[in-house]
Amino acid sequence: MDCVFCDILAGKIPSAKLLETESLYAFLDIAPANKGHALIIPRTHCQDILGVDPKIGEDLLSTMQRIARAIVNVTGAKGFNIIQNNGRVAGQEVDHLHWHIIPRFDRAEMPLWKQGKYESMDEMMRLATTIKLQI
Amino acid sequence: MDCVFCDILAGKIPSAKLLETESLYAFLDIAPANKGHALIIPRTHCQDILGVDPKIGEDLLSTMQRIARAIVNVTGAKGFNIIQNNGRVAGQEVDHLHWHIIPRFDRAEMPLWKQGKYESMDEMMRLATTIKLQI
Repeated sequence: MDCVFCDILAGKIPSAKLLETESLYAFLDIAPANKGHALIIPRTHCQDILGVDPKIGEDLLSTMQRIARAIVNVTGAKGFNIIQNNGRVAGQEVDHLHWHIIPRFDRAEMPLWKQGKYESMDEMMRLATTIKLQI
Repeated sequence: MDCVFCDILAGKIPSAKLLETESLYAFLDIAPANKGHALIIPRTHCQDILGVDPKIGEDLLSTMQRIARAIVNVTGAKGFNIIQNNGRVAGQEVDHLHWHIIPRFDRAEMPLWKQGKYESMDEMMRLATTIKLQI
């Protein structure tokens, strides 16, 4: 399987490493939204969030906190986004699960989405009921 | 403390509930990027990712998977984003930690960020070293 993040994990491709933990590896994104933009990836390959073992969750949250604090300290960012894209349609470009941590300096530099609305409260409640049946 | 999400958790404000777990509550965002856009919040109030107990991580990943699969099934989405904003500058509007799960149908509907670059590989490696010292 040809996976650039697996190659980084194997040391076949160099990366600007930030941290290694039991289940995760963190490094700087080479095409950053802002400088200091980091990626966290699981050591075990999976395509997206649906395939990951939830047991790495504690390590994940702890690693996000450590990385985000350090990036904020170093860059002087006023906030940060954590973004995880699933599928080409959602902007995923490497098919190995990854979380982006993006330091932010100006709200206008990266508008995220336009808020939409439901036709009615009833429409929203009916949709919630339909989704609940699938959970 | 005045927190709209704590009021939802307390049942003081109605919400389109999807799921409750030991540590989390999931419901539909009333101002969705796309219909089916869900929020996952911790039952215990904290402002952002830096304040959450990492021990809820396994519950979080498991809940993300259950919610995302159900939303994709119901909406027919081709992918989805999971986004968590920290700070006004990053687009956070409610100061109670929350994860957005946004079903996606078209890549163009929500451009996420412009890819930037480092002046040199050396600049990136030096920044990584500086951040590592803060971790």
